[in-house]
Amino acid sequence: MRKTVIGVMGPGNGATTDNLESAYELGKYIAQEGWILLTGGRNVGVMDAASRGAKEANGIAIGILPDESEGGVSEAVDIAIFTGMGNARNNINVLSSHAIVACGIGTGTTSEIALALKADKPVILLNKDETCRFFFQKLSKERMAIAETPEHAIEVTKRFLAASR
Amino acid sequence: MRKTVIGVMGPGNGATTDNLESAYELGKYIAQEGWILLTGGRNVGVMDAASRGAKEANGIAIGILPDESEGGVSEAVDIAIFTGMGNARNNINVLSSHAIVACGIGTGTTSEIALALKADKPVILLNKDETCRFFFQKLSKERMAIAETPEHAIEVTKRFLAASR
Amino acid sequence: MRKTVIGVMGPGNGATTDNLESAYELGKYIAQEGWILLTGGRNVGVMDAASRGAKEANGIAIGILPDESEGGVSEAVDIAIFTGMGNARNNINVLSSHAIVACGIGTGTTSEIALALKADKPVILLNKDETCRFFFQKLSKERMAIAETPEHAIEVTKRFLAASR
Amino acid sequence: MRKTVIGVMGPGNGATTDNLESAYELGKYIAQEGWILLTGGRNVGVMDAASRGAKEANGIAIGILPDESEGGVSEAVDIAIFTGMGNARNNINVLSSHAIVACGIGTGTTSEIALALKADKPVILLNKDETCRFFFQKLSKERMAIAETPEHAIEVTKRFLAASR
Repeated sequence: MRKTVIGVMGPGNGATTDNLESAYELGKYIAQEGWILLTGGRNVGVMDAASRGAKEANGIAIGILPDESEGGVSEAVDIAIFTGMGNARNNINVLSSHAIVACGIGTGTTSEIALALKADKPVILLNKDETCRFFFQKLSKERMAIAETPEHAIEVTKRFLAASR
Repeated sequence: MRKTVIGVMGPGNGATTDNLESAYELGKYIAQEGWILLTGGRNVGVMDAASRGAKEANGIAIGILPDESEGGVSEAVDIAIFTGMGNARNNINVLSSHAIVACGIGTGTTSEIALALKADKPVILLNKDETCRFFFQKLSKERMAIAETPEHAIEVTKRFLAASR
Repeated sequence: MRKTVIGVMGPGNGATTDNLESAYELGKYIAQEGWILLTGGRNVGVMDAASRGAKEANGIAIGILPDESEGGVSEAVDIAIFTGMGNARNNINVLSSHAIVACGIGTGTTSEIALALKADKPVILLNKDETCRFFFQKLSKERMAIAETPEHAIEVTKRFLAASR
Repeated sequence: MRKTVIGVMGPGNGATTDNLESAYELGKYIAQEGWILLTGGRNVGVMDAASRGAKEANGIAIGILPDESEGGVSEAVDIAIFTGMGNARNNINVLSSHAIVACGIGTGTTSEIALALKADKPVILLNKDETCRFFFQKLSKERMAIAETPEHAIEVTKRFLAASR
């Protein structure tokens, strides 16, 4: 009955075109696997693109919003959870995901990767930045993986899910 | 695309048989309306009974858990959101619901009714206790309604939803 | 080394003149006992009045703000804790206080009394409303006390503190 | 009236001897400046060492705990704020500090640095790790500074505080 929830985290306004394309693909693949997509829920950047991808594939997109109420929710989000707690909601994002894919990097995404590693959640880095890869692999070798493409990220996610059963 | 979310709040271990039966009916009716059921997600009391009702009617039950991780989640919950923030999650329950039905009373439920009224959310009290009815109606006449049965609570919920459009 | 922290909770904009006078007295007495005053920290109502009372007696007033940043903090607050989590911060107020005095009533205060009782914290009701007294005494006889005056509230607080040692 | 609050963040169980010595010095210097020390409040690592430093200099140490209640609070903490929200409290740590000094590195500290930069708070990195320095300077050049010693960190903090007035 309980659904598998995969989080896709990444920059909002600072997302690159590459981040957006990858996020869209990730959302689509996650829905195709029958998993629930979880994002930060806002109508910008990686959150929005991933949710639109999930919608394209008739999946379910949950958005965990920093806000108290409407305004700024991605139109592709099916179920909006309003936390009213700003970026402290980043911890809810990671605790509620069976694994997270970090698509691109920024301050918010960095906090989510770090909180996920602290909570012992698998993190897949989809990001070509060498400093970023090196920094996080030093923090945690066991729970971190690097993916080169969205397809690869999904494969690695499956491996993590299988290992945790 | 966005789904209507109705919260059902009520006692956990302190729930009466009457509370449990009403919660089950509420969950079923909410699912039949095509709404998402939101509860506190634990495997006891009103949360559990409402989620089982929604499951019976093939609906979707979201649980907003106080815990950081597995253990204690109702088996009828489809999507578990782990907040790791204890009873502070009660505020998320009310902010994320378009209306809440309070089925029975206890300290946690009291906090949820009060936080809902503060956030200007409609609250339907399904509870025969006169002191309780009188106390909350004094706090807020406009957003509070009393229901005598689960069917009645659903009717009142519909009226609130229509008025807010 | 660790200081005793006493919370004073009550309405913001909805506070009565009587609430404000009582809150000021409470803040003063709390400081005179060498206790730390904890409030919701905003520059209105009971929070502000209690903090000014503590300042008058050279005490320390801590404010646990709902906001992310400056703007709206009582001038009498010495140490501002910015939670950025709205009314979910009410749970922090009660968890961090050894006992709370509820001075007047409103939706926010109701949530704090309920959360305090749930967390098994002593609550002293300074409030002449019979419905309110009756409602909360039904919720928890053991941890609830009624006080008629600020002096009386301080006496009852001392008794609770002595019993918990 | 309002006190300046400086946060010292760093590893708990994973702290190095060098981290602990620096944290103790930082706590002492912060108290000597008349500032309030804010930490995560637990009785381990950088939090504990910084609080003991502040105590040595007769300062005030506030601890923002992840827990709901007693158990695990540093003995050198004067005022304990119990959030009951686990690592989501890291956001409160940074929002409540005028500047933060990150003494050493770990997953929790990484989340705090990132959340601080997101909230536009000055961050001083006291940490010789080149990857770490390089990673965070790429994230935010303006609000990040590197310090070589505790004394240097205090100097840089003063410069940030002066600039924000």
